[in-house]
Amino acid sequence: MLKVAILGGSGYTGSELLRLLLMHPQAEVTAVTSERSSGLLISDTFLNFRNPALKFESLHLKEISKKASLFFLCLPHKTSQETVAFLHNAGKKVIDLSADYRLKSAKVYREWYKIPHLYAPLLKQAVYGLPEFNRKMIRKASIIANPGCYPTGALLGLAPVMGKDFIQPNSIIVDSKSGTSGAGRSPAQPFMFCEVNESVKAYAVGVHRHTPEIEQELSALSGKNIKITFTPHLIPMDRGILSTLYVRLKKKTSLPKVQKLYHEFYCKEPFVRVLQNGRYPSTKAVKGSNYCDISVFLDKKTLIIVSAIDNLLKGASGTAVHNMNIMYGFEETAGLMSSPVSP
Amino acid sequence: MLKVAILGGSGYTGSELLRLLLMHPQAEVTAVTSERSSGLLISDTFLNFRNPALKFESLHLKEISKKASLFFLCLPHKTSQETVAFLHNAGKKVIDLSADYRLKSAKVYREWYKIPHLYAPLLKQAVYGLPEFNRKMIRKASIIANPGCYPTGALLGLAPVMGKDFIQPNSIIVDSKSGTSGAGRSPAQPFMFCEVNESVKAYAVGVHRHTPEIEQELSALSGKNIKITFTPHLIPMDRGILSTLYVRLKKKTSLPKVQKLYHEFYCKEPFVRVLQNGRYPSTKAVKGSNYCDISVFLDKKTLIIVSAIDNLLKGASGTAVHNMNIMYGFEETAGLMSSPVSP
Amino acid sequence: MLKVAILGGSGYTGSELLRLLLMHPQAEVTAVTSERSSGLLISDTFLNFRNPALKFESLHLKEISKKASLFFLCLPHKTSQETVAFLHNAGKKVIDLSADYRLKSAKVYREWYKIPHLYAPLLKQAVYGLPEFNRKMIRKASIIANPGCYPTGALLGLAPVMGKDFIQPNSIIVDSKSGTSGAGRSPAQPFMFCEVNESVKAYAVGVHRHTPEIEQELSALSGKNIKITFTPHLIPMDRGILSTLYVRLKKKTSLPKVQKLYHEFYCKEPFVRVLQNGRYPSTKAVKGSNYCDISVFLDKKTLIIVSAIDNLLKGASGTAVHNMNIMYGFEETAGLMSSPVSP
Amino acid sequence: MLKVAILGGSGYTGSELLRLLLMHPQAEVTAVTSERSSGLLISDTFLNFRNPALKFESLHLKEISKKASLFFLCLPHKTSQETVAFLHNAGKKVIDLSADYRLKSAKVYREWYKIPHLYAPLLKQAVYGLPEFNRKMIRKASIIANPGCYPTGALLGLAPVMGKDFIQPNSIIVDSKSGTSGAGRSPAQPFMFCEVNESVKAYAVGVHRHTPEIEQELSALSGKNIKITFTPHLIPMDRGILSTLYVRLKKKTSLPKVQKLYHEFYCKEPFVRVLQNGRYPSTKAVKGSNYCDISVFLDKKTLIIVSAIDNLLKGASGTAVHNMNIMYGFEETAGLMSSPVSP
Repeated sequence: MLKVAILGGSGYTGSELLRLLLMHPQAEVTAVTSERSSGLLISDTFLNFRNPALKFESLHLKEISKKASLFFLCLPHKTSQETVAFLHNAGKKVIDLSADYRLKSAKVYREWYKIPHLYAPLLKQAVYGLPEFNRKMIRKASIIANPGCYPTGALLGLAPVMGKDFIQPNSIIVDSKSGTSGAGRSPAQPFMFCEVNESVKAYAVGVHRHTPEIEQELSALSGKNIKITFTPHLIPMDRGILSTLYVRLKKKTSLPKVQKLYHEFYCKEPFVRVLQNGRYPSTKAVKGSNYCDISVFLDKKTLIIVSAIDNLLKGASGTAVHNMNIMYGFEETAGLMSSPVSP
Repeated sequence: MLKVAILGGSGYTGSELLRLLLMHPQAEVTAVTSERSSGLLISDTFLNFRNPALKFESLHLKEISKKASLFFLCLPHKTSQETVAFLHNAGKKVIDLSADYRLKSAKVYREWYKIPHLYAPLLKQAVYGLPEFNRKMIRKASIIANPGCYPTGALLGLAPVMGKDFIQPNSIIVDSKSGTSGAGRSPAQPFMFCEVNESVKAYAVGVHRHTPEIEQELSALSGKNIKITFTPHLIPMDRGILSTLYVRLKKKTSLPKVQKLYHEFYCKEPFVRVLQNGRYPSTKAVKGSNYCDISVFLDKKTLIIVSAIDNLLKGASGTAVHNMNIMYGFEETAGLMSSPVSP
Repeated sequence: MLKVAILGGSGYTGSELLRLLLMHPQAEVTAVTSERSSGLLISDTFLNFRNPALKFESLHLKEISKKASLFFLCLPHKTSQETVAFLHNAGKKVIDLSADYRLKSAKVYREWYKIPHLYAPLLKQAVYGLPEFNRKMIRKASIIANPGCYPTGALLGLAPVMGKDFIQPNSIIVDSKSGTSGAGRSPAQPFMFCEVNESVKAYAVGVHRHTPEIEQELSALSGKNIKITFTPHLIPMDRGILSTLYVRLKKKTSLPKVQKLYHEFYCKEPFVRVLQNGRYPSTKAVKGSNYCDISVFLDKKTLIIVSAIDNLLKGASGTAVHNMNIMYGFEETAGLMSSPVSP
Repeated sequence: MLKVAILGGSGYTGSELLRLLLMHPQAEVTAVTSERSSGLLISDTFLNFRNPALKFESLHLKEISKKASLFFLCLPHKTSQETVAFLHNAGKKVIDLSADYRLKSAKVYREWYKIPHLYAPLLKQAVYGLPEFNRKMIRKASIIANPGCYPTGALLGLAPVMGKDFIQPNSIIVDSKSGTSGAGRSPAQPFMFCEVNESVKAYAVGVHRHTPEIEQELSALSGKNIKITFTPHLIPMDRGILSTLYVRLKKKTSLPKVQKLYHEFYCKEPFVRVLQNGRYPSTKAVKGSNYCDISVFLDKKTLIIVSAIDNLLKGASGTAVHNMNIMYGFEETAGLMSSPVSP
């Protein structure tokens, strides 16, 4: 059994990691840290679990580094910077669910996160952990920068047409609708039930920090410097991100051709389901699962791609476990084959 | 008191009209028709009302035409065609909430609704009842084509920049998120609670019938033949439409300039609230009211406008009452000044 | 116009009071206080309002006492104690929405609220402001203790049978289901969207502070010392309380007899709707209105009464305005006749 | 691999059975029937599944009886009567999720279901499939009457005190709150999103068909003829039943004693979690899992027990799989150990 630890495990991504890892046939959770819940039983904080033996502990890096081979980090950005560096230097493998090692450029990081990156050399060693793109590098990586939730849905939806000559690469609009678990578990007035319920709104228009992450990966895929327009929205539901992606065409093409492109691009992927013509992805059809559902539409000169993921699984903890499976040579789908829970 | 009747009043727009008209100081509801609920007390179908005297009756045109001066039609499209014509010929005024008299071209109507328009000459007499655009014509109209819910949010958001030289008029994308009451009250599997709840999905991509309506009015505003891309989405909430509108810039402009344009365009409108810089509209902030909230953002070369309405009020029955107020010279805001109900 | 002020107006009951008072034909809001939002426009905190002139101010008792004749207090209990006393001594009228003046016994207050009542003599002057019970006393009162939300639904449901010889008075069970706005607007982890949504739970079983309030009023109605069992539940919705009330029968009776009793008891009440045989109250059918809907059922030897209210209206701010109307000789229904907003 | 078939598999219990059986290590689904979806791929009806090979077929009893050893019946009551009989005579094992074989008395069945039971002799052979009560008989059974959703939550909550001398056995009140999936998947106006959302209501007060089922099993447990008062409520959520159970005390007892009783009663049960003192069950903490969470409270002379289950798992398909595991000697928890999905 692979010994793994979760650092910063009292939020929703931590709890989802725990849910997946407790069911995983080859991994064993040896420690979960939380500053605010330190000393409490995990079953006291997350009433869905009843494993009575496991307690949250404070994060003492030296001690905890001895308890596991692989570390999942669900720490806030900035804190993650040095924790990754420490564990890496101690010879441990790390899957970092924060944003700290996703951007390859320390300059871009500073611009968007307003703090310097103190471990810039490590950025080059970190692999952007989207398995559908970087499977080979993930296999050998010791630091995985686990992708953001919005980027995952947008990138999987856009990848098959990036670099194609029939699209206008700088026309891309990403209009995303996210459930509320994406906002985290800490109390805050805008995410109180009565504020979110029965409402939909846009937020962080033009300034969301996932923008440079999407741009970096689209640029890598297409070999061009891509800039996008990204608008996130808050939806009154727990889980799920639906991304509606708009791409202007440069040349004429046909819907069947583009659909074929998508089917071929993802035909071997265990977690991407390209839907048949006329089917619409919905977040409910992927809820509780690691799937990404994708459909393609053509409206005059605009390609419209719709993708749906569960933000806590394919958009966070599910991909983290997928990365672990690849890194350690486990079956890629181990612990991840639960069907969506619907309704 | 102005005598009014509601034809086809057992759906959500009918019930909302009733709610507004029962509180209206100058209107009296003398009849409400419904085929499926004929003979039942209105309070048997809509448990929120308790007015015990009013019953649903079957629609007998001759008889009912004597009962009121103004008729609100919440009938299905096609049925509305001839009912409008009959009442018009009988010298009555009509506010038609169906789509039958919105499109000026019988040819375009046939293309999108798959049936001929049998009263094409009347299309010219019908006034598109968006008060912010057509106040003067509404005053003298005898047939009002009450705007669709999606068009209302999209058109109010886009109007101030239509015809301006700094936008690319054929780059417009309308990405709308609607509550479920927009789908009507008749039982259908896709709108059952467990299908809609905890989910978001796109539908009718590229083929929604509100598309030609939006294009017609944008073309009228700009003096150009405008084509748009329109994607509606279904949101797990009762009421509200949030429209995120994307317009490419042709020339450089600045956010303050565009914001000033919006503030000036709507400064005298009682029901349009242009929010201050950095504020985000939400459907909850307009729920139960006749307001349309609008904010403008600029992201590189894309103008992003966000508008929020209550689809049953500003997107249907509220605007219908607003049109009545204008037609009969009542105070424009009569019966419509309820603050949004929040939370 | 009657000048009124709202003290502690940045929560949900404050915002609902504001909504009602802004529409009231005979009242004018001259001040709204809030410590945390002091200096901000009301429209900055409550995005549903757009009245630009009104700002939250800090609560300086001396100054504010000059600004109005009637004061609505939405302050936390304990703080309310002395504020009521100060305003009363300054010759002002007060409607206190906190719990501080509801219990007639300072001893019982201390027992349940764990603090002494420093103004015990004033408790006798305070009138329990449930208009259906205490209309005459409210007319002359200068201090109104506005009822709690759970007690309102329970008391209106139980009142007609209290003191009747066919019930067992100490068998009463109150099982209540409340929307989340009852928990207030301050950020707290248990009321975050993802904690409340898609869940139902009981809380404060046997220890909820509304218990002695219900017992006091039932005892007054029946002339006996009544003890009840009260279980509140949290429901994933914004507004509404449904109370299912169980009363054991001592003697045989018939459903029609009991229904007649209810119809007669409330036949003159503008805000209580006793439903016809077989109809079920729902919170949606009263949402956004000041109504209380009640139905009665008989199952073998148990009487089951179901009542539904909007906790922010009939359960708080609506009743507060109703009390104002009675105190000042306004039409009782002034500003309160909005139909429920449904769906 | 055990070959199993699902008859009547296009509803929510069918889809949940499928979800569980597709993940089960020892069972293989060989057929799923549905009249309305016959010929369609399962993945066309349930978009969460993507197994492309399996199609719905019409129910031809002779043919289908050859396809499996064990049959799960999700048919409407009445239809189930004869299907069970046919399969039983063909030497097959049956787990019937309808109500047709739950009531031991054909007379009581006729009284509540308004039709005769045509296979009354088989009622004696059918075992009431609540594993916590009837494990031994289930092991040898060929017909399992799978318990109803409400009875499961009520019976597990009440069992430990049935037959105890300190309770009044005929004082029991079951106040249950159910998510909407319990109402099934067929389109019906009362279960449309906009009717259920933002509302709570009681229904079928005193006449719900799960009443005699609960009474039968409580009578069996206590050796007395028990009559209960049962009130179901509809909650705006997908899954879950919270039951609040009230039992009057005859003699004094203490909370710790009763809690000890519960802990001991269920200490070996893999799916019943008796919570620690002061903890509240919530439906969210069991959602997507086969657990039943239970807490006990004491308020003066009333014992209050609260139980939470997922109605589609522990209240239907999860227990059906549990019964299969017992019947075939599989590990009892096989395929059922998923942690609750939260949030």
